[in-house]
Amino acid sequence: MLLNCDLGESYGNWRMGLDEEVMPFLDQANVACGFHAGDPFTMEKTLKLAAEHGVTIGAHPAYPDLVGFGRRSMAMSAEELRSALLYQIAAIDGMAGTLGVSVEYVKPHGALYNDMMANGEIRDTVMRTVAAYGKPMTLMLQATTAAEQHQDEAAALDLGLLFEAFADRCYDVDGRLLSRRKPGAVHSKERMLAQVEQLAKKSTVTTVSGDTLRLRVDSLCVHGDNAEGVQAIRDIRKLLTDHL
Amino acid sequence: MLLNCDLGESYGNWRMGLDEEVMPFLDQANVACGFHAGDPFTMEKTLKLAAEHGVTIGAHPAYPDLVGFGRRSMAMSAEELRSALLYQIAAIDGMAGTLGVSVEYVKPHGALYNDMMANGEIRDTVMRTVAAYGKPMTLMLQATTAAEQHQDEAAALDLGLLFEAFADRCYDVDGRLLSRRKPGAVHSKERMLAQVEQLAKKSTVTTVSGDTLRLRVDSLCVHGDNAEGVQAIRDIRKLLTDHL
Amino acid sequence: MLLNCDLGESYGNWRMGLDEEVMPFLDQANVACGFHAGDPFTMEKTLKLAAEHGVTIGAHPAYPDLVGFGRRSMAMSAEELRSALLYQIAAIDGMAGTLGVSVEYVKPHGALYNDMMANGEIRDTVMRTVAAYGKPMTLMLQATTAAEQHQDEAAALDLGLLFEAFADRCYDVDGRLLSRRKPGAVHSKERMLAQVEQLAKKSTVTTVSGDTLRLRVDSLCVHGDNAEGVQAIRDIRKLLTDHL
Amino acid sequence: MLLNCDLGESYGNWRMGLDEEVMPFLDQANVACGFHAGDPFTMEKTLKLAAEHGVTIGAHPAYPDLVGFGRRSMAMSAEELRSALLYQIAAIDGMAGTLGVSVEYVKPHGALYNDMMANGEIRDTVMRTVAAYGKPMTLMLQATTAAEQHQDEAAALDLGLLFEAFADRCYDVDGRLLSRRKPGAVHSKERMLAQVEQLAKKSTVTTVSGDTLRLRVDSLCVHGDNAEGVQAIRDIRKLLTDHL
Repeated sequence: MLLNCDLGESYGNWRMGLDEEVMPFLDQANVACGFHAGDPFTMEKTLKLAAEHGVTIGAHPAYPDLVGFGRRSMAMSAEELRSALLYQIAAIDGMAGTLGVSVEYVKPHGALYNDMMANGEIRDTVMRTVAAYGKPMTLMLQATTAAEQHQDEAAALDLGLLFEAFADRCYDVDGRLLSRRKPGAVHSKERMLAQVEQLAKKSTVTTVSGDTLRLRVDSLCVHGDNAEGVQAIRDIRKLLTDHL
Repeated sequence: MLLNCDLGESYGNWRMGLDEEVMPFLDQANVACGFHAGDPFTMEKTLKLAAEHGVTIGAHPAYPDLVGFGRRSMAMSAEELRSALLYQIAAIDGMAGTLGVSVEYVKPHGALYNDMMANGEIRDTVMRTVAAYGKPMTLMLQATTAAEQHQDEAAALDLGLLFEAFADRCYDVDGRLLSRRKPGAVHSKERMLAQVEQLAKKSTVTTVSGDTLRLRVDSLCVHGDNAEGVQAIRDIRKLLTDHL
Repeated sequence: MLLNCDLGESYGNWRMGLDEEVMPFLDQANVACGFHAGDPFTMEKTLKLAAEHGVTIGAHPAYPDLVGFGRRSMAMSAEELRSALLYQIAAIDGMAGTLGVSVEYVKPHGALYNDMMANGEIRDTVMRTVAAYGKPMTLMLQATTAAEQHQDEAAALDLGLLFEAFADRCYDVDGRLLSRRKPGAVHSKERMLAQVEQLAKKSTVTTVSGDTLRLRVDSLCVHGDNAEGVQAIRDIRKLLTDHL
Repeated sequence: MLLNCDLGESYGNWRMGLDEEVMPFLDQANVACGFHAGDPFTMEKTLKLAAEHGVTIGAHPAYPDLVGFGRRSMAMSAEELRSALLYQIAAIDGMAGTLGVSVEYVKPHGALYNDMMANGEIRDTVMRTVAAYGKPMTLMLQATTAAEQHQDEAAALDLGLLFEAFADRCYDVDGRLLSRRKPGAVHSKERMLAQVEQLAKKSTVTTVSGDTLRLRVDSLCVHGDNAEGVQAIRDIRKLLTDHL
C-alpha cells in the first residue's frame, strides 16, 4: 500500500502545504496543475522535489477555479472538461519530461474528484480523457464498494485504475466517507493508525456502524498541511515499514 | 519561404481571427497557449484544424496577461519566465500529441516577442528554455541584421532558429519594423506583394530610406484577423505558388 | 414597458456586442462587471456611452467564470456569492459615480440569473445582498407566474423589483422560456413583434400551448449581438413609440 | 504619526498576514482590492475587522497580477491604469459603504507604488485618478526629498496627500530606501525603534551615510506577516504611546 499526498498547492506568493517535510515519506505526489493551485514556478519546484526523492508523480487537475481552490462544482460541458483536463495533464507532463521525470497517473482534485465519484457522466469524461491522453496514464479514484463497476468502466477504455483510501476518515456502509459534519467523521490518531493497519493487513475498514467492509486499496491518501499532518505521515510510514 | 500566422486567439465565448478561412493557406500555425488567449477548448479545436490541413504547429506562448492580450511588458524574473514558458509549451505539446500531431517550434507572442528581440537577457531565458524543453523544438524570431548574432547565441545552446519577416510592414535600416505610428509603416497591398516577391526571390527588403537590406527569412508572418487579411494571405500564397 | 440589453461584454482585445449601435434605442443597459466579461476599461467606456444617451445603468454581475462567460453554474456558498455580488455592484457603482451617473438596478447574468429564478436559497442570497448594498437598488428578474411570490420575498427585505420579459422567446404555461432546443422556442421577427405588442397592450403572452398568460412586465430584454439583433431592437422601439 | 499596514492579502484558501493580531494596533489598514490579493470574501472580512477596531480604511490597488502578487511592473497605458484603479477603489469603497464604514485614502501596492514614485507619468495618472474618483480620497505615497514637488503636483489637482515612512528600512541620502540586497538595508529591532523615535520627535532619519534627512511623515508603514512583525508593531505602538 502506497502513500499519496496532494502537493504543489502554493500559488505565487502564497504558501500552502509543508511539501519539503512531507516528500521524503511519500510514494506518490499529486501535483497541482495551475487551475486550482500551483503556478508554473511552483509546479517546477514541486516536480524537482519529487524527482529528488524518487517519488512517483501524478497530475492533480481541477476545475478552473483559483479563488474557490477547485472545491466548487462547475457545470462544465463534457467537451470543456475534456479540454481542461488535457491541458493540465499535458502541462505537468511536459514540464516533468523536461526535468527528466515522468507523470504516471491522474488524480482529479476537490469538487471534480467528488463529481467524478458521484456522477457517471463526469466519470466517463474523465476516464475517456485520461485514456485518450497521448501517453499511458492510470487514473486514481476512491476505493468504494463500486470499485468493481469502475474497474469494468475503465477496462472498456483500456485504462488502468488506482484505488485510494483515506487514513483518518470514518467510512459509512457504502464505502463512502462520513461527512465531516457528522460526529466521528475524522479519526483520532490512534484510530487512524488502527485503520491503516487494518487496511494494510486485511484490505478492510470498520465502518461507522461497526461492519467490516472489504476495499481494494492501492494507495493511502495523507495530508501535509500542517505539523500535525506531517507527524501523522511519519507515523503511518513507520507503521507500514515496521510491521508490514 | 513559408507562411505563418497567429491562430487560436479566441477565448471562451469571444471570437478572434478567421482561423478556418486562413488555415488552408498556411504552412505554420502559431497557436495561443492560454496565457494571452486560447482557452483549452479553443486550443484543441485549433490543433484539430491545423492537423486537418497538414499545417505545422508552433507554440505561441505569452506573458500571463489575458486582459492585455499579452501586449504589455511584465517584469518577470528569469525563473518565472522559464516556468511560464515551459508550462505553455508543454500544455500545447501534450494536447497536440493526444491528437496525433506534433509541436515543432516556439514563437513568443506580443510583448514577450518584442522584449526577446530587444533584450539580451530575456532572449537568453527564452532560448535556454526552448532548448531545455523535453523535446527538440526550434525558436522563431524576427529576421533582423542581428540574425547572425542570434544564430551564434542559439548554436551555443544547440537550438535551431527560424527567422520570420513581415509582409506588410516597412523596414528601417536596422532591419526593424517602422513604428506603426509613422507614415508608411504599413504597406499597401501592392507594395506588400512587391516586398514578398523581393524577399522570396532575392532575400532582401527595401527599407524606408531606400536601402536594400539582406535578411535570412524562413517564414513570412501574415494576419487573418479580418476578410482583408484573409484575401491578402490568398494573394501571397498565389504569388508564392505561381511565380516562385 | 422599457427596453433593456446586456452591454459592455467585450473583454480586453475581444469585441462582443454592437453597443454603440444599440445604445440609442435602449432605456436600460445591463453592464458587465468584470467577472464574466467587461474589463475595467470596457466598463468605463460602456458607462460613458450609456451616460451620453441618458440610458439607465444596471449592474450585471455574474459567477467568477471568464472562460465560461458566466454561463456555468458554480456551487458558491451564500457568503461567497454575497461578497462576489457586493464587489461587482460596488465596482460599477463607484465607476459610474466618478462619471457623474448612477447605477439604479442589478440584473444577475447567465447561470446566476437562471439559478436565482430556479433556486430559492440563491434568490434569497441575491435579494438580501442587493437589499443590503450601501445605496438603494432594485433587482431585475424574470416575469413568471411566480412574480407575486417573488414580490413578497422582496417586500420583506424592503427591496424593489423589476420584472422583465423576452421579446423573441416562446413561453411555456408556467411562464418559463421554452428550452432553445425545442421547436418554436425562438420567434420569427413577425411573431416577436406580435408578442411585444401583446405584452405592451395587454400584459399577456400566448404560450406554446395557446394559452394566454398574464405577466407583470416592467422591461423587455433585447439582444444586440449582431446586425439582425440591432434591427430587431430598432423595430421594437418603433413599435413601442408609434403605437403605444 | 499614524501606523499603517497592508492587510487583507489572503486569497481564497491561501492565508497571508496575521490580520487579526495586527489590527488592534493600527490606525490605518491598506486593504487589498482583488488584483494582487484579496478576493471579495477576504475583502469583506477585512473591512469588518477594521470597522470593529475603528481603524481607518485605505484602498490598496495594484497591477492585475495575482500570480506575481502585484510585484512586477506592467506596461499599462494611462487609460488602462486609470480604469483599473477606479475599478478597485470603487469595489472596496462600495463594499465598505455597505458595512457602514468609509474608505479614506488610496495607497498603491507593490510595483505600482514603486513605479508611481519613480515615474512622473504614472504618478500623474495615479494622482488624476484618485482626484477624479466620485468621493474625496487622499493618496498615500512615500516620504522622500521630493515631497514638496509631489505636494505641488497634488495641489494642482486639489488632491490631498499622506506621506509614509518605513520603520525598519535604512534610508539613502535621497530619501530612498536602501536596496534590500545591500548590507544594513533592514534595521535590527533596536535601530528600528530608534528610527521611529527620531521620526516621531524630530521628523528626521539618519541615512546610511550618517547624514540627517528631514522628512514629512504622516504615517509609518509596518508589516504583520509573521509573529516577529506583530511584536515589532506592538513595540512601536508602545513607544509612540508611552513617550510621545
